[in-house]
Amino acid sequence: RINPDRLWDSLMEMAKIGPGIAGGCNRQTLTDEDAEGRALFKKWCDEAGLTMGLDEIGNMFMRREGTDPDSLPVYMGSHLDTQPTGGKYDGVLGVLGALEAVRTMNDLGIKTKHPIVVTNWTNEEGARFAPAMLASGVFAGIHTLEYANDRVDLEGKRFGDELERIGWKGDEKVGDRKMHAYYELHIEQGPILEAEEKTIGVVTHCQGLWWLEFTLTGKEAHTGSTPMAMRTNAGLAMARIFEMVQEVAMAAQPNAVGGVGQVTFSPNSRNVLPGKVVFTVDIRSPDQAKLDGMRAEIEKRAAEICEPLGVGCEIDPVGHFDPVTFTPELVENVRNAAERLGYSHLDIISGAGHDACWAAKVAPTTMVMCPCVGGLSHNEAEEISKDWAAAGADVLFHAVLETAEI
Amino acid sequence: RINPDRLWDSLMEMAKIGPGIAGGCNRQTLTDEDAEGRALFKKWCDEAGLTMGLDEIGNMFMRREGTDPDSLPVYMGSHLDTQPTGGKYDGVLGVLGALEAVRTMNDLGIKTKHPIVVTNWTNEEGARFAPAMLASGVFAGIHTLEYANDRVDLEGKRFGDELERIGWKGDEKVGDRKMHAYYELHIEQGPILEAEEKTIGVVTHCQGLWWLEFTLTGKEAHTGSTPMAMRTNAGLAMARIFEMVQEVAMAAQPNAVGGVGQVTFSPNSRNVLPGKVVFTVDIRSPDQAKLDGMRAEIEKRAAEICEPLGVGCEIDPVGHFDPVTFTPELVENVRNAAERLGYSHLDIISGAGHDACWAAKVAPTTMVMCPCVGGLSHNEAEEISKDWAAAGADVLFHAVLETAEI
Ligand SMILES: NC(=O)NCCC(=O)O
Ligand SMILES: NC(=O)NCCC(=O)O
Repeated sequence: RINPDRLWDSLMEMAKIGPGIAGGCNRQTLTDEDAEGRALFKKWCDEAGLTMGLDEIGNMFMRREGTDPDSLPVYMGSHLDTQPTGGKYDGVLGVLGALEAVRTMNDLGIKTKHPIVVTNWTNEEGARFAPAMLASGVFAGIHTLEYANDRVDLEGKRFGDELERIGWKGDEKVGDRKMHAYYELHIEQGPILEAEEKTIGVVTHCQGLWWLEFTLTGKEAHTGSTPMAMRTNAGLAMARIFEMVQEVAMAAQPNAVGGVGQVTFSPNSRNVLPGKVVFTVDIRSPDQAKLDGMRAEIEKRAAEICEPLGVGCEIDPVGHFDPVTFTPELVENVRNAAERLGYSHLDIISGAGHDACWAAKVAPTTMVMCPCVGGLSHNEAEEISKDWAAAGADVLFHAVLETAEI
Repeated sequence: RINPDRLWDSLMEMAKIGPGIAGGCNRQTLTDEDAEGRALFKKWCDEAGLTMGLDEIGNMFMRREGTDPDSLPVYMGSHLDTQPTGGKYDGVLGVLGALEAVRTMNDLGIKTKHPIVVTNWTNEEGARFAPAMLASGVFAGIHTLEYANDRVDLEGKRFGDELERIGWKGDEKVGDRKMHAYYELHIEQGPILEAEEKTIGVVTHCQGLWWLEFTLTGKEAHTGSTPMAMRTNAGLAMARIFEMVQEVAMAAQPNAVGGVGQVTFSPNSRNVLPGKVVFTVDIRSPDQAKLDGMRAEIEKRAAEICEPLGVGCEIDPVGHFDPVTFTPELVENVRNAAERLGYSHLDIISGAGHDACWAAKVAPTTMVMCPCVGGLSHNEAEEISKDWAAAGADVLFHAVLETAEI
């Protein structure tokens, strides 16, 4: 069994870096706080005897040698970056839970045939730079490194420049390593496990996603002296698209969601009808046909909404992944470990995207989940119990040992 | 007659300060560009022999002596501040048209009984600091100076601090001067004069306004893993309120408008449902009962929209003025001047708010309008012809002479 107190203490230590304003964290990717969090994680890894590999996109690979150093390593990890108003566990539990598994191996003098690598993937959240899971996507060959480096945040800062600035750009070519398997522990970020009173989620699938970035072009005009009939009102078109996305998502129930988190009005002045409105629609489903059908429906109906208003409508798919089916043998390892350790468990589909979704493209992959209070995540009030964290890390530890061979 | 070329050259000179990105201007109130524009205006006034009064809110009063210095001055003016993506004429024509009228008096050796004061009011636009017409409102006793100084922009900067910073805070107590009359020349900012092929708008009324700032409180949550039924979606509530405002404005036709220019999502991340959405609804009508009825209807229906979604809704009226009726004798002066000078004219109601609306609370007041191309304003593409500008300044010149007594 792993050490619940040590794991919890590490989680609380890490949460002090980039503290939020309401008990959570603001440690967005490639900020000074991200650099500080990485340094603390590296210090802990050094103390645990791990050696670092750092690639050109800042992914950190912390290696524990195996008895057969020529065999491919078993990877486990997640991400240390957070949302601007994020929680203390989203991503962090997966990295520090993996570290705790290694610390426990050290404590118990466990030797594995396969080397073990604890991984911290860069920019999983996609909050500052879209898309999410950017660096694991480059690792898996989904995006080019150039594409990633050219992403810009809302202030116009480039991903590549910010990575250099914080000093965490390495030399290793991205994707230049093979994985025997990849395991990721993560909080559920949804309400199912808690509602069903299960401690462990055995993750069989992950739903797919489209991020559709809309740019609506209206005509800047005075809100007072421009008659209703003369308006080219991009804000009104946006409102109708929001309502339509809601309808499309509701019509696709169950197992589908749709919503909007980011909106920018230009010039954003109270007495100017917006000339430009930019927002991103986030739609997801574990069913590929349903997901792509929602996208097609939204694009068709958005055009029908904008046309009579005279509003220009461009749609850029700035984020995407297909639904994922995780590797059955690894899923079985997770289920067996939970069973063996006496934790209640349930097969679930991940509602959020994870680095594991891209890892699954290049290696046998699966995930372990633990509940979170009220299903709440991407909120500073995100909360889990120490018992849940410990259960998740325990199952990760045992499943990884199974694959890494003692 | 005024000198059309000199007026036009001054307009073009001023437009070089705080140039926009598409041919217009970004000379927002209390920025460095505002300070630079004020300095240029003062230089021109010095050259025309005017003496400056500057009050504690930065209003500039440039005085030309009368033959009876004890009689109350006749004021004319407008504002030099612009929208973030504003035009070259909105406000500026009223200030520089007034300066041109004075320059012409100098050229012709005209002496008036009443002194003449050319005025530049601070923060007419309300783009950076709500509400609009802030400093003329303090002058007229509508707001306190403390209220004005405490306004903050989107970056959290205080009005009072920014006024001190740019060095244009004077000693004169705000409102500590009486006006014999106030005239304001302004571009129409609407489509009527051009459509009716009239050169001069004789402004009889100004429509009233409410700026209703909504703060919607939702629940920050993950866009992927939060089921539709568990969402407290403030973005969806906002969309429904936009559509409802449109309906209320359409139902109030003719002579009413409603729309939204400013929206802020928090935390504004693509995969986080917003915890807070702030936006300002702008509604206007020249009919007091209709205007207040629209407000009541919007507030009632907004509550009905938010309630079933579980979204919190607070409404703060951050800007307001009642419909205005301008002083009949001055209106008649404007009509007579247009007639005498041979300009086609039409009685109109101002769709936009103006400093004249507050001046009307404390002095006999009216306005002169000239057309603008396509009715477009609050847009860098705002355009007028040199002939229109000259006609407006000419009518202002003659109407003011009538009141100031030669
Ligand atoms: N786990 C998580 O929140 N990932 C961010 C990507 C997503 O939006 O699903
Ligand atoms: N004239 C003008 O654009 N004033 C700004 C105040 C308003 O929104 O009407």
